[in-house]
Amino acid sequence: MRIAIVGAGALGLYYGARLQRAGNDVHYLLRSDYQVVKKNGLHVYSVEGDFFLENVQGYLTSEEIGEVDLVLVGLKTFANHRYNELIKPLLHEQTIILTLQNGLGNEEALAECFGPDRVLGGVAFLCSNRGEPGVIHHLGEGRIILGEYNSPETNRVEKIAKLFRESGVPCRAVADLKKARWEKLIWNIPFNGICALMLCPVDTLLRHPGSRGLVIDIMSEVIEAANAQGISEKIKHSLADDMVKFTEGLGSYKPSMLIDRQESRPLELQAIFQFPLTAAIRKGIRMPKVEELYNLLDLSENGFTV
Amino acid sequence: MRIAIVGAGALGLYYGARLQRAGNDVHYLLRSDYQVVKKNGLHVYSVEGDFFLENVQGYLTSEEIGEVDLVLVGLKTFANHRYNELIKPLLHEQTIILTLQNGLGNEEALAECFGPDRVLGGVAFLCSNRGEPGVIHHLGEGRIILGEYNSPETNRVEKIAKLFRESGVPCRAVADLKKARWEKLIWNIPFNGICALMLCPVDTLLRHPGSRGLVIDIMSEVIEAANAQGISEKIKHSLADDMVKFTEGLGSYKPSMLIDRQESRPLELQAIFQFPLTAAIRKGIRMPKVEELYNLLDLSENGFTV
Repeated sequence: MRIAIVGAGALGLYYGARLQRAGNDVHYLLRSDYQVVKKNGLHVYSVEGDFFLENVQGYLTSEEIGEVDLVLVGLKTFANHRYNELIKPLLHEQTIILTLQNGLGNEEALAECFGPDRVLGGVAFLCSNRGEPGVIHHLGEGRIILGEYNSPETNRVEKIAKLFRESGVPCRAVADLKKARWEKLIWNIPFNGICALMLCPVDTLLRHPGSRGLVIDIMSEVIEAANAQGISEKIKHSLADDMVKFTEGLGSYKPSMLIDRQESRPLELQAIFQFPLTAAIRKGIRMPKVEELYNLLDLSENGFTV
Repeated sequence: MRIAIVGAGALGLYYGARLQRAGNDVHYLLRSDYQVVKKNGLHVYSVEGDFFLENVQGYLTSEEIGEVDLVLVGLKTFANHRYNELIKPLLHEQTIILTLQNGLGNEEALAECFGPDRVLGGVAFLCSNRGEPGVIHHLGEGRIILGEYNSPETNRVEKIAKLFRESGVPCRAVADLKKARWEKLIWNIPFNGICALMLCPVDTLLRHPGSRGLVIDIMSEVIEAANAQGISEKIKHSLADDMVKFTEGLGSYKPSMLIDRQESRPLELQAIFQFPLTAAIRKGIRMPKVEELYNLLDLSENGFTV
């Protein structure tokens, strides 16, 4: 299977490397890493065992990659306005587009550009960071939950799930992708949000009783909102405690939004905050503490320039 | 009347200067300003007209001041554990103690140290900052609302109100001091809190639609809580809009908690956040957005040191 990785950051490079290592024909759209990766290959330092890919098929434009069977989208969501430019050259009649991006609204935006039928969504529960150019640190987790965006559950979802599993990535196809998206938001909203706002890693939050309580309160708000979205099975409030316990095992982990802020990149506020807040309000649910966090993050991003 | 100013910051120095200028015998407990003020006097740059006091009776200890008729307390509330040390040497049998400090809990703490009968409370609506040593900038407002802490409304409150009025400070004695305290909290909680957390002046908040909305939401929560405290008259929600409009006139004003944080002083979190949150919860009222702001401020102050 010919695969293109669009958005080759900590997530795209990690999954691309796993797929390539298992023998797939993987092509990476690169930017800052291009020179180093072409010359020196790609190093993955993983909790599941380090590995090194000597020959990496890297490109600077999608045109050079040409048509593929599967596009794996790992772009930061603030770059979604570039879908057409980056993805269109990769498509043939049957190309499947799988977004593993954060938050809500990505499948919808892809469907608008390329039609709904070729769009799949995946929720990646992955802790990874980039090191120096050509280096990925895989710090924990990695499983993916896959689903169709528009079509009824199809054979192709299971086929792609199998592709990941055969590459060493736990992967499960589900009928209710929305539930998985919201489950990830339960983690992403408090930890990405508070860590980015306060410029601290997750363990700093969890050590302080006030912010630990705030994390739980925010998770509860998101669980309420998720359960109003017509998902297949209600999410239990005990998931909040489980997630906090899991996160304690991550030590001084830096969520991606914190890294984005530290590296002066835009924040994924629309996908992780604005769309979920809107989806909640549509169902009559207010998330006051999420709203506040969003307002403060947006102030930090957009309020200081006139 | 022999008057001592304890806590001679932007507030204490301003009111002390007004009282002295009107002919009162004012004695200032000084610290960082001591040398400069003793040598060069005190400059007040005021929206109501600048003035200069050449001879300022400044001291480094309360013992040197000795007994007075009125103690005006302008200490930062995080220094309240020093009440005994700083105030006791100033007291004779009839000395009145008037706290003009921020937030809740100050009259109670003074009453615990010195008995409830000599305690008065005042709410100062004052915009002032310190400049270089020996310089006060009076940027707006200045009125004081005075009340008894424990005794029924007495003649002495009106006497002290008159003392302020004769010094050019609008001052009114009220039976319901609690209402005035909460009215000031409606301003203090959002503006002190968000400005200190985000390290920006008030106009930055009000220019950004998200944080402007957050200010209004927080004010609404505080108004709800205030109206549950058994105050003499309900506070209208329209006060929030009035306060925002008033604050727009202040330009790039820096609330005291922002200056405290910028100058690495402790924050007045107990008086301005913790006591009001507790008072609200006692009446069955939750203030989720105030809670969150408090948790984040407390994280910023106490969460980063292990």
